[in-house]
Amino acid sequence: MEKCKITFYPINKDMEVPVGTALKKAMNDAGLDFDFPCGGRGRCGKCRVRIREGVVPPSDSDRVHFDEEELKEGYRLACTLTVQGDLVLELPQEVTGHKILIDAAERSMEIKPHLQKVHLEVKEPSIEDQKADWDRLRDELAAVKGDKDYRITLPALQALPKVLREKKFSITAVIADNKVTGLEAGDTTDRMLGIAFDIGTTTVVGYLMDLLTGKELGAVSTMNPQTKYGADVISRITYSSQEAGGLEILHKAIIEAVNSLIGEAVEKVGARREDVYALTFVGNSCMHHLLLGLEPRYIALAPYVPVTGSTQEINADELGIKVNPAGKVYVLPNIAGFVGADTIGVILATELDESSEIRLAIDIGTNGEMVLGNKDRLLACSTAAGPAFEGAQISCGMRGTAGAIDTVRMDDEFTYTTINDERPVGICGSGLIDVISVMLDTGVIDSRGRIANPNELAGTSAEKLADRIVDLDGMRAFLLAPAAETGHGKPLFITQQDVRELQLAKGAIATGVQILLDVYGIGYDDVFEVILAGAFGNYLDKHSACAIGLIPSSLEDRVRPVGNAAGTGAKVALLSAAEYRRSARIASFVEYEELAAYPKFTEIFANSLSFPKKD
Amino acid sequence: MEKCKITFYPINKDMEVPVGTALKKAMNDAGLDFDFPCGGRGRCGKCRVRIREGVVPPSDSDRVHFDEEELKEGYRLACTLTVQGDLVLELPQEVTGHKILIDAAERSMEIKPHLQKVHLEVKEPSIEDQKADWDRLRDELAAVKGDKDYRITLPALQALPKVLREKKFSITAVIADNKVTGLEAGDTTDRMLGIAFDIGTTTVVGYLMDLLTGKELGAVSTMNPQTKYGADVISRITYSSQEAGGLEILHKAIIEAVNSLIGEAVEKVGARREDVYALTFVGNSCMHHLLLGLEPRYIALAPYVPVTGSTQEINADELGIKVNPAGKVYVLPNIAGFVGADTIGVILATELDESSEIRLAIDIGTNGEMVLGNKDRLLACSTAAGPAFEGAQISCGMRGTAGAIDTVRMDDEFTYTTINDERPVGICGSGLIDVISVMLDTGVIDSRGRIANPNELAGTSAEKLADRIVDLDGMRAFLLAPAAETGHGKPLFITQQDVRELQLAKGAIATGVQILLDVYGIGYDDVFEVILAGAFGNYLDKHSACAIGLIPSSLEDRVRPVGNAAGTGAKVALLSAAEYRRSARIASFVEYEELAAYPKFTEIFANSLSFPKKD
Repeated sequence: MEKCKITFYPINKDMEVPVGTALKKAMNDAGLDFDFPCGGRGRCGKCRVRIREGVVPPSDSDRVHFDEEELKEGYRLACTLTVQGDLVLELPQEVTGHKILIDAAERSMEIKPHLQKVHLEVKEPSIEDQKADWDRLRDELAAVKGDKDYRITLPALQALPKVLREKKFSITAVIADNKVTGLEAGDTTDRMLGIAFDIGTTTVVGYLMDLLTGKELGAVSTMNPQTKYGADVISRITYSSQEAGGLEILHKAIIEAVNSLIGEAVEKVGARREDVYALTFVGNSCMHHLLLGLEPRYIALAPYVPVTGSTQEINADELGIKVNPAGKVYVLPNIAGFVGADTIGVILATELDESSEIRLAIDIGTNGEMVLGNKDRLLACSTAAGPAFEGAQISCGMRGTAGAIDTVRMDDEFTYTTINDERPVGICGSGLIDVISVMLDTGVIDSRGRIANPNELAGTSAEKLADRIVDLDGMRAFLLAPAAETGHGKPLFITQQDVRELQLAKGAIATGVQILLDVYGIGYDDVFEVILAGAFGNYLDKHSACAIGLIPSSLEDRVRPVGNAAGTGAKVALLSAAEYRRSARIASFVEYEELAAYPKFTEIFANSLSFPKKD
Repeated sequence: MEKCKITFYPINKDMEVPVGTALKKAMNDAGLDFDFPCGGRGRCGKCRVRIREGVVPPSDSDRVHFDEEELKEGYRLACTLTVQGDLVLELPQEVTGHKILIDAAERSMEIKPHLQKVHLEVKEPSIEDQKADWDRLRDELAAVKGDKDYRITLPALQALPKVLREKKFSITAVIADNKVTGLEAGDTTDRMLGIAFDIGTTTVVGYLMDLLTGKELGAVSTMNPQTKYGADVISRITYSSQEAGGLEILHKAIIEAVNSLIGEAVEKVGARREDVYALTFVGNSCMHHLLLGLEPRYIALAPYVPVTGSTQEINADELGIKVNPAGKVYVLPNIAGFVGADTIGVILATELDESSEIRLAIDIGTNGEMVLGNKDRLLACSTAAGPAFEGAQISCGMRGTAGAIDTVRMDDEFTYTTINDERPVGICGSGLIDVISVMLDTGVIDSRGRIANPNELAGTSAEKLADRIVDLDGMRAFLLAPAAETGHGKPLFITQQDVRELQLAKGAIATGVQILLDVYGIGYDDVFEVILAGAFGNYLDKHSACAIGLIPSSLEDRVRPVGNAAGTGAKVALLSAAEYRRSARIASFVEYEELAAYPKFTEIFANSLSFPKKD
């Protein structure tokens, strides 16, 4: 049997086939995801390819669908083409996949969403052709998409006879894996939206994405309504386990918030809920559990195991999420009780799992999660950093909203800026790190965190700041802003207690980093890059963070903030089923390190509480 | 690498493996469905095999689990065995599958139900082993059942943490395909029931089956409650399409009946609804559609297409069917608008699709469905026989219940019997066929169906019956039983009109048989066997049926009644997932013949109305 070679451009795939092979068969055999919308009958003209090299006389169908110019340029229908000699074929862009860049993480990826829409022109039944509706549709689908064991859900089957006849057997099937989950009359393949959700303990964010182009259409966010049942993870777990119906209450609250964010998101772009077909979710393990109605109790009890560390696919309606009836929910996996799907999102966004160099990713929030390693080994841990960096447990702390002091400098004078340039009403995480750095640099505090007696500062560079050190109900404190400067007419202080809280928080993070390095068996110099995930990472001053020892100062030049990488991971998993599957592999690849069980934990933690000594 | 041969007895499967291969791996590679309940750690002692040939020194685990006698007999644990030379291994009975015989169809089959229960002793988590609950369970499952990509449903995941801890991590997983659909604390692998349903237009029957042993535990039946919305298929289709909410009403009615039959069935044997895990359903296409809530409208409109001709798997709760929450419904496929899943059941029960000889199966009910052929080709058709054989449209017709005349003879005297020996109140199908046969044999009616004038009978063998021929409101009629004999004090007649109805009914059946033979290109002599499906086939007198031309008389000796073969098919598909899959292959294999579209239909039907001439 004489053979010839087909080369598919631009993917540079080669194959050998016997002379006389139908190109349609060859393309199916090659596993190309190429559609023949009319079933390969030369009717619809959609399966166009271009002959770059080789000779193919135009078929009758080619003459119908292409003008003389196009035929000369080599355009042919793939479905009627029989291979008679070596060919180089150019595939249309949809088949080769288009890549997009996402967000600050600069993540390049190929769009291949979980659900597919396939438009079919189904042949109408007749007394000579009495095939059942579903069998007819399925066979057409197999002709267009290649033979698979296609199934159909009961709701789709119930809708089928009506929808099929609504636009004269022109119908669009929504497919998840090999299952038809939805049916729409006519050709609706130009509409398919999805939303990537990042469920934070405090804030819920949703990113509305066009699943066909990969474009982000908008973002919406709201307070997590569970906040009223507990500000942090532990109090929510307590509420869900100890209150009657507590789990159900927290579960419903988050589902309701998700539903109203979906409504808000689609309204912004003039779309409908029904245009949303897929949702992905990241969040810490507790948020993950409450979203799915899973008992979170054992996360908080030794040995701290979550219910699942795997991906989970759910029909949206099973969760009470209101989108298209064919809508599917894809939940990213957890790594451990306190390293959740949000950390998986960070790894997926930053591709630590494929990095050749060893990288350290830190996501600072209420807890601090850290991942260290590369494609050969990844270690993760969680530290109970406490919410100091979010402004909580600091006497004048606040979240990063209008009026928060967000940067502090000491050049000739002590200066600060506030968010929106309003009069200050408190200090947020980045400002707090700055002010501690200034206090440390000037000697207002020493490396053990003690605020100096003003007398001690005489003759030093800190002399200018001496009158800012005051006694506050018997506790020493540093005056940030006198009452006359502030928005609420009350002075703002950093108290000795605040410094201690900050020491605990940064000490927890530093301990995590140190233990991961120890377990990995490497030192600071082996870390190629420090990735700061989370909005906080964008605002924080690298120099200050290193000065106070939150990040080892030898790594200062290697710090890269990437914004909400967890959210980016959710987007990536939404736009690509392959990336979602990758998240499952990541979850089983990452080794979780239980810090408290590490033999030298206490020693390392104690050492991490001090600030770095000035050079 | 040195190889050795393992032979598995009694299934006679051979394989070659390198010396030193773990038997567990070899058995997995061989695709044997063999369980290692403790994950192959030599703990549970359940994976016992017997060495028939070859030498295997006992392992430490073998010495724990077997006594000296057993070791001598060759018993070993499969999980600790390493293959060092050629072996002949005897597998326990569970692995080789046990066969059962079902019903009158004498159907032999291997039991392998859709759902599996697997008991697992899961290792408890610890601070050194913090794997998530589901990942822990899944890995244990993979160790026991072989590596598969196991998934879990959301409800099962929600139940998991509690159930897992209820009996100290001893848990039974219910598995459908590769999905965990249910979880039960402890070892519940000894309880698994299923029900096979035959949804008739008039009667609904359910057979309660033990899915582990294949034993039938009982049968329950009830009137189809849809009857009050229409006695036959066409009137139900009309109701469902034309009344507001008609489809929903009919759907709910049958689901309710199914639910109450399930309750009745389990109560009879002291079981609970939760013990029922699987249901199969057969029924004609309309009953099938109403059960699933599918629009049946297009069945009744040319070109008469059903919504689906494929098998359909549904979660029981999705249909509102109340069994175990993990319960699954398996619906057999339809062949055409008027040849439904009940006919598939008949074919599956009688294995026409694997027959070497050509067989004819006739299922006589409100409609008559027929299948002709063998493993090379099967043809099916449906005839609008009308419900004459069920007693409808016959002036004194009734169903086969107490007081129905069920046999009629003319020896010296005209005699009849009734069901339960009660005084007659009507005549059922088998009695009707008998009496027509008697009337024909004696000359009371001629071959065209005309009832003779009593005068014409003088001097013939029918003379004795002459005084039974009476005039009834201007129509000639044959007296079955005078008022004095009957249960209700009214006389019973066969009128001229009744004879015409019977002619239409038997003519329809005979036409179907004739057209199938014509299309197949064979004659009566080529038919090896005539299978009569349906309860009616059990009661009907073969000789009478042939005498009136319902069945070609040359086939009289080849008639075999098989009872409710449709129901048997449902049982077979319930006990064996492979047989259920076979039903899908049957549906696409059978060719449907639209009788009305057959060119010589009118001619053949006209010829079939006459009764056979007496020899």
